[in-house]
Amino acid sequence: MISKAKKIAIVGLGLLGGSYAKGLARANYQLIGIDIDLEAVEFAKKLNWIVEGGDDPSLVKNADIIIFALYPLTLLDWVKENQKYFKSGAIITDVTGIKVEVLKGLKEILRDDVEFIASHPMAGKEVSGIKYADTSMFEPANYIIVPTKDNTEEGIRVATDIAKILNFNTIVELDPETHDEMVGFVSQLTHVIAVSLMNSKDNTHLVDYTGDSFRDLTRIAKINDVLWTELFMMNKENLSKEIDDFVEAILHFQKALDNSDIEEMKRLFVQSTERRKLFDIRK
Amino acid sequence: MISKAKKIAIVGLGLLGGSYAKGLARANYQLIGIDIDLEAVEFAKKLNWIVEGGDDPSLVKNADIIIFALYPLTLLDWVKENQKYFKSGAIITDVTGIKVEVLKGLKEILRDDVEFIASHPMAGKEVSGIKYADTSMFEPANYIIVPTKDNTEEGIRVATDIAKILNFNTIVELDPETHDEMVGFVSQLTHVIAVSLMNSKDNTHLVDYTGDSFRDLTRIAKINDVLWTELFMMNKENLSKEIDDFVEAILHFQKALDNSDIEEMKRLFVQSTERRKLFDIRK
Repeated sequence: MISKAKKIAIVGLGLLGGSYAKGLARANYQLIGIDIDLEAVEFAKKLNWIVEGGDDPSLVKNADIIIFALYPLTLLDWVKENQKYFKSGAIITDVTGIKVEVLKGLKEILRDDVEFIASHPMAGKEVSGIKYADTSMFEPANYIIVPTKDNTEEGIRVATDIAKILNFNTIVELDPETHDEMVGFVSQLTHVIAVSLMNSKDNTHLVDYTGDSFRDLTRIAKINDVLWTELFMMNKENLSKEIDDFVEAILHFQKALDNSDIEEMKRLFVQSTERRKLFDIRK
Repeated sequence: MISKAKKIAIVGLGLLGGSYAKGLARANYQLIGIDIDLEAVEFAKKLNWIVEGGDDPSLVKNADIIIFALYPLTLLDWVKENQKYFKSGAIITDVTGIKVEVLKGLKEILRDDVEFIASHPMAGKEVSGIKYADTSMFEPANYIIVPTKDNTEEGIRVATDIAKILNFNTIVELDPETHDEMVGFVSQLTHVIAVSLMNSKDNTHLVDYTGDSFRDLTRIAKINDVLWTELFMMNKENLSKEIDDFVEAILHFQKALDNSDIEEMKRLFVQSTERRKLFDIRK
């Protein structure tokens, strides 16, 4: 496990960065917190989640491990501008929901004497800000480490240790391309569906009639527009392809319905039921 | 409230009929339970949810109120074959998820000396059978009464009382056409989406990576194929139209993505967020 002597900096004290700080502080790690929002920094200090912090990027100079909890484009800009402060040998990780573009961007700019290990904690909420920080969202969630050939065993071990300290349910490794394709389907497409369902007509007069299924399906339609636009744009080809496949599937269903093809409808129901059951077993 | 002297028959002791029996018995009503599955009848008797029961349709002859908890086509067949046993003046209701076709079918066949008042308890689970009977699913749910010009005040009051006894969250009235259009969007379309997402590709290898959003969105993809095929077929035009509108919305999103139209994507996110918020407030 990561030595308690190591200093860990978290850059970005929002919902996710704040929750990381809370969880790592609880495990007695020495944390440095950096955010342009000094209220978030004060909040973290007051609760003893960080031992030092502020809005000054040079605070990272004391860190052996740096966790970036920033939007993907902000992460790239921040590194470009402030990597001069990185301690030589520092291990850097992130929380970003897409990987190919982030890794490409970092490869072009990152100093040779530090190591970046990509991580994706698949946890979140429909609210923003450190005041909602909550480590319980990690416990049922997957933590995906996305190594490349440039990574060392130590880099991967640091990312793994962070996931363990934060009590993630499963820790798995994926290559960047597979990760982004998977995320395009499992996470991004589901958000497109929820958003499109809310947008397909002005349904707000139906609020008195709705059932659990509609609520469950559209929970994620409350969406951080800046963050998700970035994530979608950086995974555009995968996501557009997933939308194609999904639209094809729904039009296939519609055709069975329009043709009163009862046997085909039942076949589609049985197939979806069988597949969905697998997702319960390993919950 | 319905007099305790009235006898209530429940035809169909599945998940929903069983839950009705449980809730009405708890409120000390005298219940008759009818099902072709004698094990379900025995189960209900053992727990004192019914005072008499069996597979003999003529058992309804003692009932002042009859609740049909059957699939829509089975309901129509059952009434056709067994309405000779109805007590004159009996008030009959149902639990069916579509209304126009059921009302049309019943209007053609139903005896003149009994009254049918259509009801739709918007509650359910992804399991079947009386052994899963559970009245707690009624408490957050809507109960929709769907009167026509043929209904009396007494008929509507009986349906309302049943909803009150079972502790439904809200009780509202809708005309049959509006009901079926609403259900086509709020309930049927959401099921088509969940099923199509599971069917859009063999995604079962992704079970280790999935997050809450995928699980929430596909929970209802475990579906009773016989029941839902009937429901969909009886609401075909409405549902097909809702699929059209939804596909148009998702293709509109895809176009914004493909064109890197960031402003339009943000606009769609903000709109969906605003609309979805309303569904939280009145939860």
